[in-house]
Amino acid sequence: MKIRNQLIMLAMLTVGIALPLSAQQGTVNPAEDYTELPDPKPGDTPETWRAKVKGNHFTWASIDVRYPKHTVPDVRTEKTWSGTGWKGERIHAQALFYADADVKQARLEVSDLRKGKDVIPASALTPGFVRYVMTDELNKDGKSGCGERPDKSQWDSSLVADAIDIIKVRDIAACSVQPVWLKVQIPAETPAGKYKGTLTLTAEGMQPQQLQVQVQVVNRTLPAPRDWKFHLDLWQNPYAVARYYDVPLWSEEHFELMRPIMQMLADAGQKSITTSIMHKPWAGQTEDHFDSMVTRIKKIDGTWRYDYAVFDRWVEFMLGIGIDQQISCYTMIPWALTFDYYDEATNRVQFLNTKPGEKAYAEYWGVFLKDFAKHLREKGWFEKTAISMDERPMEAMREAIKVIKAADPDFKITLAGNYHEEIQADLYYLSIPYGHQFPEDVKAERERRGQISTLYTCCAEAWPNTFTFSEPAEAAWTTIHAIAGGYDGYLRWAVNSWVLDPLHDSRFRTWAAGDTYSIYPGPRSSIRFERLVEGIQDAEKIRILREELEGKGATGKLRKLNECVAKFTPEGISRTQQDPAEMIHELSRLLNTL
Amino acid sequence: MKIRNQLIMLAMLTVGIALPLSAQQGTVNPAEDYTELPDPKPGDTPETWRAKVKGNHFTWASIDVRYPKHTVPDVRTEKTWSGTGWKGERIHAQALFYADADVKQARLEVSDLRKGKDVIPASALTPGFVRYVMTDELNKDGKSGCGERPDKSQWDSSLVADAIDIIKVRDIAACSVQPVWLKVQIPAETPAGKYKGTLTLTAEGMQPQQLQVQVQVVNRTLPAPRDWKFHLDLWQNPYAVARYYDVPLWSEEHFELMRPIMQMLADAGQKSITTSIMHKPWAGQTEDHFDSMVTRIKKIDGTWRYDYAVFDRWVEFMLGIGIDQQISCYTMIPWALTFDYYDEATNRVQFLNTKPGEKAYAEYWGVFLKDFAKHLREKGWFEKTAISMDERPMEAMREAIKVIKAADPDFKITLAGNYHEEIQADLYYLSIPYGHQFPEDVKAERERRGQISTLYTCCAEAWPNTFTFSEPAEAAWTTIHAIAGGYDGYLRWAVNSWVLDPLHDSRFRTWAAGDTYSIYPGPRSSIRFERLVEGIQDAEKIRILREELEGKGATGKLRKLNECVAKFTPEGISRTQQDPAEMIHELSRLLNTL
Repeated sequence: MKIRNQLIMLAMLTVGIALPLSAQQGTVNPAEDYTELPDPKPGDTPETWRAKVKGNHFTWASIDVRYPKHTVPDVRTEKTWSGTGWKGERIHAQALFYADADVKQARLEVSDLRKGKDVIPASALTPGFVRYVMTDELNKDGKSGCGERPDKSQWDSSLVADAIDIIKVRDIAACSVQPVWLKVQIPAETPAGKYKGTLTLTAEGMQPQQLQVQVQVVNRTLPAPRDWKFHLDLWQNPYAVARYYDVPLWSEEHFELMRPIMQMLADAGQKSITTSIMHKPWAGQTEDHFDSMVTRIKKIDGTWRYDYAVFDRWVEFMLGIGIDQQISCYTMIPWALTFDYYDEATNRVQFLNTKPGEKAYAEYWGVFLKDFAKHLREKGWFEKTAISMDERPMEAMREAIKVIKAADPDFKITLAGNYHEEIQADLYYLSIPYGHQFPEDVKAERERRGQISTLYTCCAEAWPNTFTFSEPAEAAWTTIHAIAGGYDGYLRWAVNSWVLDPLHDSRFRTWAAGDTYSIYPGPRSSIRFERLVEGIQDAEKIRILREELEGKGATGKLRKLNECVAKFTPEGISRTQQDPAEMIHELSRLLNTL
Repeated sequence: MKIRNQLIMLAMLTVGIALPLSAQQGTVNPAEDYTELPDPKPGDTPETWRAKVKGNHFTWASIDVRYPKHTVPDVRTEKTWSGTGWKGERIHAQALFYADADVKQARLEVSDLRKGKDVIPASALTPGFVRYVMTDELNKDGKSGCGERPDKSQWDSSLVADAIDIIKVRDIAACSVQPVWLKVQIPAETPAGKYKGTLTLTAEGMQPQQLQVQVQVVNRTLPAPRDWKFHLDLWQNPYAVARYYDVPLWSEEHFELMRPIMQMLADAGQKSITTSIMHKPWAGQTEDHFDSMVTRIKKIDGTWRYDYAVFDRWVEFMLGIGIDQQISCYTMIPWALTFDYYDEATNRVQFLNTKPGEKAYAEYWGVFLKDFAKHLREKGWFEKTAISMDERPMEAMREAIKVIKAADPDFKITLAGNYHEEIQADLYYLSIPYGHQFPEDVKAERERRGQISTLYTCCAEAWPNTFTFSEPAEAAWTTIHAIAGGYDGYLRWAVNSWVLDPLHDSRFRTWAAGDTYSIYPGPRSSIRFERLVEGIQDAEKIRILREELEGKGATGKLRKLNECVAKFTPEGISRTQQDPAEMIHELSRLLNTL
């Protein structure tokens, strides 16, 4: 099957369905349309399409499904969508358009949503064409998405609907599915009640296709994202942005291109700024490696001089956007144990090969950390800064902790990695892998001390995950699970570590496709990102309701809530065997009616 | 023959004539003896030795001959050496010791040289054991020593006597030649006349072997080397010293190890300090490449910041030693057109690929040169600094000159390369290859303007040269030729660019052996270096005598002098067909008797 698909693709290429230059280069002007890669899955034949589909079809569908591009959708036509949400919440829906003839210059329009004199303005509604990206699959053993993938042909490939586009106009080919995502950001001051409006798709030479939008606003308010308690930490990669758009690092253009990306994170309640305090903290495992944001110069008189120009610029930028709770500084234990510095004697960057426990290591880091602490205090950032490590052996962590404490006992320390009883007390912020638990007493003590304890997913989880081929519901399930499992939040090691050509092909030389990003260039959001945020909002609603119900002593309702929430754990889902998407809808209904 | 030699060497190695660890590593304590490599030439058999040589032999020999280590010397026993020199001059002689039995703990002793109450103290005499180093030969076409030599077996190899050791004691094997070099530095205040003393070789269980030393001091004074007009420019390599001795670059130890090396150059009248103002000016063609002595940082705000810590330290060190006439700054046109800088945005060293004539090139250099000029003026060094290039095309030079003048029209510029009429006027210091001439009127104008015009040799000259296999007289002939050819002095592109293991093996992956150094670790001088200085002294004597004779109107003597000097040109030596060594001795006698 795979070879046949590749031959089809080759044939398509040779007969002149040329990949535009931009597709090959991977750099696309954000406001321009782009051509998706050919679909390796043949889907339904044109004959089947024309037999089943007459004329134009525009219908609401499910946010839980990635509709294949060339398969006639198996959906019952639904012209009205009814969503429910709290004031301040953003809710979403997915529609599908498909036709038996090419459609030119299709546009999406939204109306205000009205309830008498009250209005949710059209500007609060964001419709977007959903775009198809190439993806692959889990490893053959189905157990994870980890490991190297030097040969793409070893994994099945397919196009999946994921990115939510920002362009206003596009052509839609006959006999293909054009999903449409609608986001409704319910303003916080909206009076409760039912609001009605429309979503319309217009195009040249076609009757406008209209769908009804109905939003029920619940008489409860979700706080603004910056006030969410959920500790979200999606690691940012500024270097990918500079490379993708080919702009000088840290230039005005670079920051302007990053601004809307980071704003999306702020609007999801992002708490941490990702900084790199040495060269290649992760050995350049992403398409674009991280450079050091700190300058270290070893002078010929033997002293060290440090400069924080890049670090300061990046941090100030992120603080200005409102991501201001934490500054995570990676790392003292890089994946390749080689530590860079600018060597004045040779006027070259040199590397020191050493490791935690060695004298050279203690000196390299000790001298720096003292200076760094001084700098952070001068900036007023010391309290929110944590020296951060990920997935390092416990002995190495112990040694690093010694060095940090020797430099400044008040330095906060972060680890994203396995739980180790021996060191957890020293870790201000500890994120452990999905499926691992903090012992209850430890978690309680950590809370008492104001320490943060979250979970993370990466390539290791077959389910739940946010690969581009993962089910949409998995993203929401993950963040609901965070609160269900008693964690303080959720961490993921990458959100915009773009592959070479992220709009067209999410596959990479390592890990399952989509592991490294859920925000696309544009920036364009994705079904995965939107649903991740949906889950965070649900977690906030759970927290708020729990407080309220506990406060009121409404034990019955509280029990009902907690029983529902408890299903969002590995044990819970195993016990109930309930479909995750359905589980989420059930929870959502409960959160909107309690 | 080559294969046989190699088999002999292999056999010697396998039966346990082990190369000492130091020979393999290449790092030897300067004060320690070392074991020479096995001699690829069998020389005379032990039987021949014992037939021809009975007991111990100590005799004066010739400074023009590199006596093979294992051949019974074909010299008439000479127990008295009579040398002649001016006050302030250093003269030298070579003796040979050889015996039919091993000699243990041989030492060299010198006495004062006495003339009545007047004395040339023993401290003015420096005897040294001459050491054998591996060498190769010219290219097969006999035309030069240029080109790559990745496979040593392609050239004949031999041991040659060259380095003049600093150790006081060594064992001498039976049936091998131990040359001894004697340098006599005649103090400037020595009364004219004949002085007598001895050179004695003592050893365990052996009668002391004594030779007579007679020095005729002429009633003329040679100025101190720093007052010589001869413009000597032997390029120094600090990086080789740090590597060889494994000391941190620019550390106290590094400078202390370099001090005696640079003192040797100062005592030869060295005029220029070699500095590198960018990374790898010569693409790392020597064993130890040159790093930049200047820090260039491109800040994220787009401005440049420069730091001269290394440059200043090195220059001040050399000025302190008395090498203070010129600071040569290599280069604006490197052999690989790639220009380094520290990039704050990535906190890495980045490279700019550009070339003379391009805007990027003009900006990279223009901004720097303005700042560099300011720095040099602040240090009071601007007048003696020249931006220096070597062997670059004329068009590139023109563009570089434009950029230099745009930054500061008073910047001096140096080129070691072909003569180009179009640009020579802009070149404060121009050194052209052996065999090339400055047009007479051009030379006169350059002199009038205080510009320097010299010649250089490198790998390109089969003769004369200072490869380790070159005849000793070639070194002196070269520097005498400088004045004979009407040049202001002599330049060579390397004097201590040590190969991996310079004491044992002068061969390199490029060029004929010895091209890259004539001063050895220790530091140890060499027959080549001593004779180079001999020729410089002769050039000074010629200059002094010419001035005197011209002043006196002694046309007969002047003509005689100039006729003798005129032979020291390619045309002259070709015309007379005289042996170069004999030519030098003849000149020497004339200079001592005019």
